[in-house]
Amino acid sequence: MKTNPHFYPVILAGGRGTRFWPLSRKRRAKQLLALDGKQTMIQQTVARLAPLAAPGRFWVITNDDLRPAILRQLPELPAKQTIAEPAGRNTAPAIGLAAFLLLRHDPEAVLGLFPSDHVIADSAEFRATLGRGIEIAAAGENIVVLGIRPTRPETGYGYIEAGAPDHDSSLRVRRFTEKPDLATAKQFLDAGNYFWNSGMFLWRADTLANALREYLPNTASLLEKIAATRGTRRFADTFRKLYPKCENISVDYAILEPRSAKGEAQSRIFCLPSDFGWSDLGSWTTLHEHHVAKAKPADGSLVSASGSFALNAKNNYVHAPGKFVALVGVSNLVIVETGDALLVTTLDQSQDVGKVVKHLDEKKLKKLV
Amino acid sequence: MKTNPHFYPVILAGGRGTRFWPLSRKRRAKQLLALDGKQTMIQQTVARLAPLAAPGRFWVITNDDLRPAILRQLPELPAKQTIAEPAGRNTAPAIGLAAFLLLRHDPEAVLGLFPSDHVIADSAEFRATLGRGIEIAAAGENIVVLGIRPTRPETGYGYIEAGAPDHDSSLRVRRFTEKPDLATAKQFLDAGNYFWNSGMFLWRADTLANALREYLPNTASLLEKIAATRGTRRFADTFRKLYPKCENISVDYAILEPRSAKGEAQSRIFCLPSDFGWSDLGSWTTLHEHHVAKAKPADGSLVSASGSFALNAKNNYVHAPGKFVALVGVSNLVIVETGDALLVTTLDQSQDVGKVVKHLDEKKLKKLV
Repeated sequence: MKTNPHFYPVILAGGRGTRFWPLSRKRRAKQLLALDGKQTMIQQTVARLAPLAAPGRFWVITNDDLRPAILRQLPELPAKQTIAEPAGRNTAPAIGLAAFLLLRHDPEAVLGLFPSDHVIADSAEFRATLGRGIEIAAAGENIVVLGIRPTRPETGYGYIEAGAPDHDSSLRVRRFTEKPDLATAKQFLDAGNYFWNSGMFLWRADTLANALREYLPNTASLLEKIAATRGTRRFADTFRKLYPKCENISVDYAILEPRSAKGEAQSRIFCLPSDFGWSDLGSWTTLHEHHVAKAKPADGSLVSASGSFALNAKNNYVHAPGKFVALVGVSNLVIVETGDALLVTTLDQSQDVGKVVKHLDEKKLKKLV
Repeated sequence: MKTNPHFYPVILAGGRGTRFWPLSRKRRAKQLLALDGKQTMIQQTVARLAPLAAPGRFWVITNDDLRPAILRQLPELPAKQTIAEPAGRNTAPAIGLAAFLLLRHDPEAVLGLFPSDHVIADSAEFRATLGRGIEIAAAGENIVVLGIRPTRPETGYGYIEAGAPDHDSSLRVRRFTEKPDLATAKQFLDAGNYFWNSGMFLWRADTLANALREYLPNTASLLEKIAATRGTRRFADTFRKLYPKCENISVDYAILEPRSAKGEAQSRIFCLPSDFGWSDLGSWTTLHEHHVAKAKPADGSLVSASGSFALNAKNNYVHAPGKFVALVGVSNLVIVETGDALLVTTLDQSQDVGKVVKHLDEKKLKKLV
């Protein structure tokens, strides 16, 4: 495979993933779980990109709670490029920092931004798409976003409205939209030129740095000061003091939306339509669907346990390793057991599991979060 | 309280109670569980009767699987009066043996037969009723059965049809009926002279011995032979060899039903209408109802756990000691967790939990039964 020596994968791994409680915890977030196969989500993310970049070119942005586990799970990556933010500031400052740091070493750096908690079925197709994206991004002031071809009227994602074709197989981005209501999502699905925003972007470090200077000048200045101390004794202290002063904002809101407002011809944002079996595994329910699609169990149930027996039961998702699980007359349930907790919910309502974590946070039940 | 020095409580404790799996096991049957309060069901049974008979007058009929736990739970009772049947032969041989053994010591013995896995809310009322029953039984060839005044058209119990009043507050028994269908159960409830068969009986040992000789002559002869060796070296061997040859039949089928067919005037079977808050706690669902009636939780849920949080959830029964339990969008569930097993069923279908045990028996998963 032809690779670009200036391509740097930046893995975003600061999320908490509370909807996978009780399996996910503050120090063991969703991306650190093996929800699909033997590797954890972040290990899969790195393995998928490994043919495109040597380990030394990976950067990981995370937080202090998760950094130790990430270092354990990814021993091949350089530990000092796994950076713990002193405070969560959303994606704009995180990837901005990566851009300013990379620029010091490689003025031609092309950054790839990758969430660490998605699954992708077809890694080869993913890399082929990415290869085209890297070429477009490397060519100049372009921003490339991987757009997932929608398969259902999903209301939980942001969408990209695409316009005219450009380059090889890419489309000019007309605008980014917020999460739509169901009727709008159906229109998007029917229209054919709307794509799910995957959160995966490609751009040159200098393009990103310039965009930050234009749209978030104060944050850009803070990040430049931090980056300037990298490799010195003052870095840790400067990072801890200045980073929390950055604006708490996503790259979508800070840069992509205002830039796309310039119009599709001016904004130089390109969407690469992608068909590589992407799923964000956003909840126990999505995970259940994902596994059912792969394993096709006759009763629609997935039971991870030491043994099980089901009577008049179907479409259940059970995670209770080490237990014998008996299901009698229950359907469409999500049942997840850990050493200290037991969750029982439904496939319909599993997206509310985050509220359990909110409750535990409020009650300061720290051992459980 | 006036007590009868010839009264001997015989506790029937050989049942398995599979509907309380996974809490109940072969060696920890329902009667050995503390399903209602701190004492186990069999401890409550003995405590309830203690004011009526000294510990030395209690007999317990059980099996080898359960005997060790019973001795541990009831250290005050004489161990050699806790008898393990070499093979389960239902109630007729069990209480027949007790009768023949008691007759050797006390020709005037009055036996009280008590299942060990029921709850009774009002112990004082229970003992008052029993006191009247003991008087009637002691008076001669009478059989006294405690009939529970029905509170709902229950189809899971046998019923007693009562006839004319007799003695002080007792009714002559017209006949014993099998478990009715719902329409019949409703008729019984409306009629007012039908009672639930509690399984609690009182009769003189010689009355019972004679009835056995009449209705089960072969079994009576075997039991007499066994009883004759009691206190000798030959007892264990004789018991092991002869007892399994006894007929496998309940006292209801063997004696009470044919005897009641003689007509209410001739049969000398008396029903004592009883109102002492009896429940057989026949399933997780009955247990849930029992506790809801006592504790009256606002959401109808009972959760035994180290902590819990419910969101859009009601009428659940949860037993998961040591776990934090989160219920999101689920109602009318029964969730029971032990060290090695997890059961999830519904209040509607919990009576089918016995089928899980049947499956485990068939699969020879001995550690789980």
